[in-house]
Order: sequence, then structure tokens, then C-alpha cells
Amino acid sequence: MKMYDILTKKKRGIALTKDEIRYVVQGYTNGEIPDYQMSALLMAICINGMNEEETYNLTIEMRDSGEILDLSDIEGIKVDKHSTGGVGDKITLILSPMLATIGVKVAKMSGRGLGHTGGTIDKLESINGFNTAISRDDFINNVNNIGIALVGQTSNLAPADKKIYALRDVTATVDCIPLIASSIMSKKLASGADAIVLDVKCGNGAFMKLEEDAIELAEAMVSIGKMAKKDITAIITDMNQPLGRYIGNGLEIIEVIKSLKGNGEKDVMDVVYALGTRMAIYAGVADNEDTAYKMLRKTIEDGSAYEKFIEFVKIQGGDVSYVENTDKLCDCKFIEELYLDKEGYISYIDTEKVGRAVQILGGGRETKDSQIDLKVGLVINKKIGEYVDAKTPVLTMFANDENKLANAKEILIKSICTDTLPCVKYSTIKSVI
Amino acid sequence: MKMYDILTKKKRGIALTKDEIRYVVQGYTNGEIPDYQMSALLMAICINGMNEEETYNLTIEMRDSGEILDLSDIEGIKVDKHSTGGVGDKITLILSPMLATIGVKVAKMSGRGLGHTGGTIDKLESINGFNTAISRDDFINNVNNIGIALVGQTSNLAPADKKIYALRDVTATVDCIPLIASSIMSKKLASGADAIVLDVKCGNGAFMKLEEDAIELAEAMVSIGKMAKKDITAIITDMNQPLGRYIGNGLEIIEVIKSLKGNGEKDVMDVVYALGTRMAIYAGVADNEDTAYKMLRKTIEDGSAYEKFIEFVKIQGGDVSYVENTDKLCDCKFIEELYLDKEGYISYIDTEKVGRAVQILGGGRETKDSQIDLKVGLVINKKIGEYVDAKTPVLTMFANDENKLANAKEILIKSICTDTLPCVKYSTIKSVI
Repeated sequence: MKMYDILTKKKRGIALTKDEIRYVVQGYTNGEIPDYQMSALLMAICINGMNEEETYNLTIEMRDSGEILDLSDIEGIKVDKHSTGGVGDKITLILSPMLATIGVKVAKMSGRGLGHTGGTIDKLESINGFNTAISRDDFINNVNNIGIALVGQTSNLAPADKKIYALRDVTATVDCIPLIASSIMSKKLASGADAIVLDVKCGNGAFMKLEEDAIELAEAMVSIGKMAKKDITAIITDMNQPLGRYIGNGLEIIEVIKSLKGNGEKDVMDVVYALGTRMAIYAGVADNEDTAYKMLRKTIEDGSAYEKFIEFVKIQGGDVSYVENTDKLCDCKFIEELYLDKEGYISYIDTEKVGRAVQILGGGRETKDSQIDLKVGLVINKKIGEYVDAKTPVLTMFANDENKLANAKEILIKSICTDTLPCVKYSTIKSVI
Repeated sequence: MKMYDILTKKKRGIALTKDEIRYVVQGYTNGEIPDYQMSALLMAICINGMNEEETYNLTIEMRDSGEILDLSDIEGIKVDKHSTGGVGDKITLILSPMLATIGVKVAKMSGRGLGHTGGTIDKLESINGFNTAISRDDFINNVNNIGIALVGQTSNLAPADKKIYALRDVTATVDCIPLIASSIMSKKLASGADAIVLDVKCGNGAFMKLEEDAIELAEAMVSIGKMAKKDITAIITDMNQPLGRYIGNGLEIIEVIKSLKGNGEKDVMDVVYALGTRMAIYAGVADNEDTAYKMLRKTIEDGSAYEKFIEFVKIQGGDVSYVENTDKLCDCKFIEELYLDKEGYISYIDTEKVGRAVQILGGGRETKDSQIDLKVGLVINKKIGEYVDAKTPVLTMFANDENKLANAKEILIKSICTDTLPCVKYSTIKSVI
């Protein structure tokens, strides 16, 4: 087998065989195939595409390039969720204790934030002492004992994907649905769950701006999951404004606590229930959506999900006083309200820019090695469809650096539009694949 | 300007601007753009193409990456020819002395052979002592004094093309017409001629197998030449069998001498006159094809072209005894005739395989650094349409190594097909662009 011939085939739009894809993934990972050949192949894939079988084979080869988590020491059906990333997305942290309370085993591996989107691991670390690098034994024991454990991704999860992604990042070959789908799914499949519920974000704050692209990505991932014999569903959710009202690591924990205490925003709770009901059904603790919804809702109403969250924080070493006194999660030097110089109904929020503003405040990473400030961020007072006048703050900024605050403010003021008439209501849950 | 954005544009099929192409060529040549980005761009170009303006701009940037020959010390209009490469193509060496005799200045820069095709420089070096690395002053003086000089390509001619070609060679991005056209034309334009006649080979021994591809390549090159304000014509010629009957470096010199002495094969002389008449017109020594043809024909009939060849060989240090006693050009240890085990009219010659057989005998390079045996090769006795029986040799092999001879023989025997009926006659000159 020769890389040259594989390049020629894909250049001509011919599908690659399983063996050819294995040759490419193994050869590139072990350094036998040089970057310049791999980047040419990635470009050919971006332009000429890959069919379902190629995409599946690529996923499996990337999954098999590293460690595959063995969750067999955990009893029951393990259900995982994955979000394609957005602004203010704290769903995992609300949903996990709810699911654990109704008996679903939550054995979750999460990532850190990069760019304008946050990461669950960073958010948890805003609780002083919280250890996201617990041992494998503690991970398994915690799931078996309290139903929930959460760790950062091991470096040996799908290393082929990591190497290929780094090359895509510098060769303009990122925005290609088969490559995105196989990248996400290789890590999901390596994480060892039996069933997967995907939250595919769609809108101006998401990677997929257009609903048709989000649907295509969702379909590609569901296809891979089914070919790998997993129960899998994808839910397309809105990302044309931040999810909820709190953005930033510690600030999002505050919204998690509020939500667990029964004060969740509608858009947040809509996504929580949409994903949660399907996960409960896959896990076998509920027969249908209605039952699952009622079970999950009860965990909020009776405070059991909040109690589970406290238990989860404690067992992973977190200082519970941060949960009890949430001011500790956002005690910043500068807390400033932002006013628009206009009034009207909020009609548009450039969500990616809002995410960038939080990044500029210090709450997001520029590169993988950036240090982040876990306490900075925003609280949005007015969202799409809500009326704002010149005397009402549209949002509140939490910062520790005056220059960064000024820079973020400049971006934010240009990121929000108003209209004289209220906008059409839209649903956070767009469709289910 | 960012390479990432240029990659994104070409991935989406958007034309690149002159400035973007300059950025790419300069950046890649000076090492600022890494191989892995350049190869991704080349793949995107292969799949999504380049328009005429992009192709022209790429050519000019590659031309300008190195030395541009200044032929202004040579009086008159300088006309160059270029062949896209075939098997048995010795046209330059027959045509150059003919043109020099009628007053066209032949200031020619030629290449070496690679793969299954030969190179003019190698062929000349089969004449003992012939110096293809004469100084710039000698080159100019020889053209001014005897009308003809021929040197190998300087290493600083279009270095950007050299670097890009090396990358294309290992990333399956060679067979792309805009890239081929700009590669050839960047070197032709750097060679300093005022007018160019292109011989675009077409058939199973050529790079372009299909006539439609040859025409597309010819049109692309003519378009570049015209945009660069050069007089330019392309002639599509047949390469479904070797040109003439002699293949191999010294052996082709024998056919050059035979042709100059008036015993040229029809296919060879058809190409000589097709190119030569247009070159004579461009040079201003003839008004029309008919006059040009008569002038060129006279140089053969009166022996003046042959005399010019002798003069040319002498002035560049060649041992004239090799021209006078052509056995010296092919004195091999093994001279063996090849018989087919069948009889009939030759219907098909796999010309690329015939070229490979000569390469295997030692007459062609596997890599740029290979040593070649200048005396080995083939003389074809029977070409397409000619009748062969089992007692008549179809060709004669000249070899210096018994194993190589056996290997070449094995290939050759499978490269020639016969039919019970004679084939349709076809013309060596296919079309003029």
C-alpha cells in the first residue's frame, strides 16, 4: 500500500477502503506518513468528502490508536453525553447529579475550554480543591458508590485524532463534517459508554452556524454510533445566544447551583430535560420520556439533585463553602454593569463575540497552555426578545484587569442589537436526530 | 495575508489574487510556508482548479523566483522550442542545426532525462567530450558566431518551481493541468526567448494519454505565453509509438545524423517541419510555412544542416569521430534481436513500457542522481501498421548487462501487439493550437 496511491484515489473522489484508512491513521500516528502527505489527504477529504463507511472506519481507527476505557467494573448501562460546544453551556453539571439521583451511572470524561467556548473541567476547578484528576480506582468507586464521577480526558485517548486535529488546525481542514464527526466520535467511543446522547449546538455561537450543517453533522455522528452498535441520539439545540445567563467558569457554577435549586432558566432546563430524558431511557431507568421527565423533575423539586451535587463536590475534594456561598465563585476586583446607548427589544446577540469577550477577560484560553482566571465572566440580564432601556444594564461584567475589562466592553457593546418590535419566539430545542 | 485564509479560499474554489499567489510562491520558496500547508494548497488546486489569470500569475511568480536569462547580446528574435517529453524524441537535435543554417538563432537550454523519457543533454553527452556546461560567454558567442549553442539548465532557473515540483511529486499533485502548464512555462519564460513553439506529446508514451488533455494543456500554456506577450504556438503530436526508430542516448544521435543526412523517418521529419516552419516564421527568416519548409528542406538536401551539426559538435568540444563513425555511439557487449512469437500487423506499442525497457537497460534514470549508460537502447524495426513474421526481428536491443537485457526483453515482448489486419493510418501531427 502506498500513500501516493491513496492520495490519488481521494483526489479523484474515490472512496478509501478500511485497510487504506487503517494504513493512513497508523502510518501518520507512528510518523511514517509525513505531515505534507497527510495534509494533502485532509484537503482532498474536505473537498471530495467521505461516505458513511469511510467516516466510520476513520473513527474506529482513531479510537483504536490509544486507550479504550473499560467501564465494565461499573454495573448497569453507562450513558454518556457530548456537546459540540457553545457559550454558557453548563448542562453536564446540572444534568449529571439529576441522573445520578435517579440511578443512572454517570462516569464522565470531560474536556477543558479552548477559544470562545468553555470546558466542564475548568468550571469544576473554580470550586477550590476540586480534583478532576482522580485515579481510575476512585473514578470507578465513586460511580459505584454515589453514582457520579467526572475526570479530565487522559492524554492517551485517541492520540491519532489529537495529531490529525493539530494538522487540520493549521491547514484550513477543520470545517469538514466527516472529519469533525469522526474526531468527536473517536473520543466518545474510546470513553467506553454503552449509549450516547449528543447535543449539537447550532447558531452564531456554535461551530455549526447553519441548522442544515448541524443536522448533517448530527446525522454523521449518529450513523457512526449506530455502526458501532451504540444507542445514540442527537439533539440540535440553539446557540444564537448564550445558554442561560451566566458565562465564565465560576459564574456558570453559580447558575448550576441555581438550576439545581429549582431556579433554572427555561432554555437551560429545556436542554437538560431533552438530553436527560433520553439518557434515562437508554440507561433503562425509565420506559418513556414522560416518566423520565417526571423522575428528573422530582430531583429538582425535592432538592435531591442539589444534595447529590454537594456529595459529588465533596467526594472529589471540592470545598463545599464555594457551593454554599457562591459569591466566592466570582469575587472580582471589577464588577461593572454594561448599558446600551439605545433601547428596544434585544433582537440579536453575536454569541461568538460574547464568548470572545469572556476569553479576553481571562476566562478562556488563547492556546492550550494559557492560564485562565476562573472568576471572571458575564451575567446577562437581557436576552433575545427582552426589552431594555438606557437605564437598565444589559449585562454585568466580572473582571480582574482594567485593560481587559475595557477591551471586553468594547466588543460586547457591538455584539448586541435591538429592534423596536419584539422578535419571533424560538425554541431552544430545534430537532432530534 | 495568511496562508490559512488562502487555503480556505482555494478549498472553497475561489480564485486567488496575484498578491496571494506571490505570497504563496515567495513564502514557500524562502521556507516561511511549511510543506504541509503547501501540499494542502496543491491538493486543493488539483481538485478545484485555477483559472487562466491564476495560472499566469503562478507562472510569473515562479519565473521571477530565480535567474531570468538575458539573451539581449544575441542579435535577432530568439525562438525556443519545448517538448513535453516522449520516447525517441530527438527533434531538438535535428531541428537546431537546420534552423541555425537558415539564420535562426538557436540559444537552447535543455534538460536531462528522467523516468522513461530521455533528455537532450544526455544524448549530446554520448558524443565523447561534448561539453553541455559551457560558460555564459561561450554560449552567447557560439550563438552569434555559428548560430547555435546548447547548455544544461542552470540550477537557479525557477527555483520555486523546482521546490514545488518536488512536493507535488510525493503528494499525488502532479497531474493537474494548471500546475503542469505553469511549471513548464515558468522555465520557458525564464529562458529568455521571444517566441516559443511547444510540442505537446499525446498518447500512451506521453504524460498526457488523452488528446483532450493534451489540448487542454496546450491551450493553458499558449494562454500563459500570450499573457506574457510572447509569440507562441503548440503542436499536438502523437506518442502512441516511439518517435523514429532509435531509442537510447547514443542511438538517438545516430538517428539524428541519419535524418540530417536525408534519411529521416517520416514521423520524425513531420514533427521537425511542423515545429521548424513555425519557428522560422517567428524568427522572421520566412514569411509563410511554404517558404519556411522549402528553406529547411534545402538544409537537408544540400548537406548544410549536417555540416552545421558537425560545427556545433566541434565548437562544444565533441569528438567528431563519433559522428563520422556512429558505431562508436552504440558499441555494446550484447546486441540481440527480439522476435515476437506471433505474426501480423503491429497494432499497438505500449510506448511507456518501451521507454521503461530502455531505462532498465541503463539508458534512463530511476532518480535524479542515477548514472546512465549512454550506449544502450533499442532500434525498432517494425512500427505500427508494419507487417512482422516470426522470422523477422521486431526490434534490436543494445545492452551491457545480461540481467538487464533479460529484464528489458521480458517487458518488451509484452509491449507489442499484432493484428491480422492492417490498422488505420494516423498522422503524427494531430493539431495546432
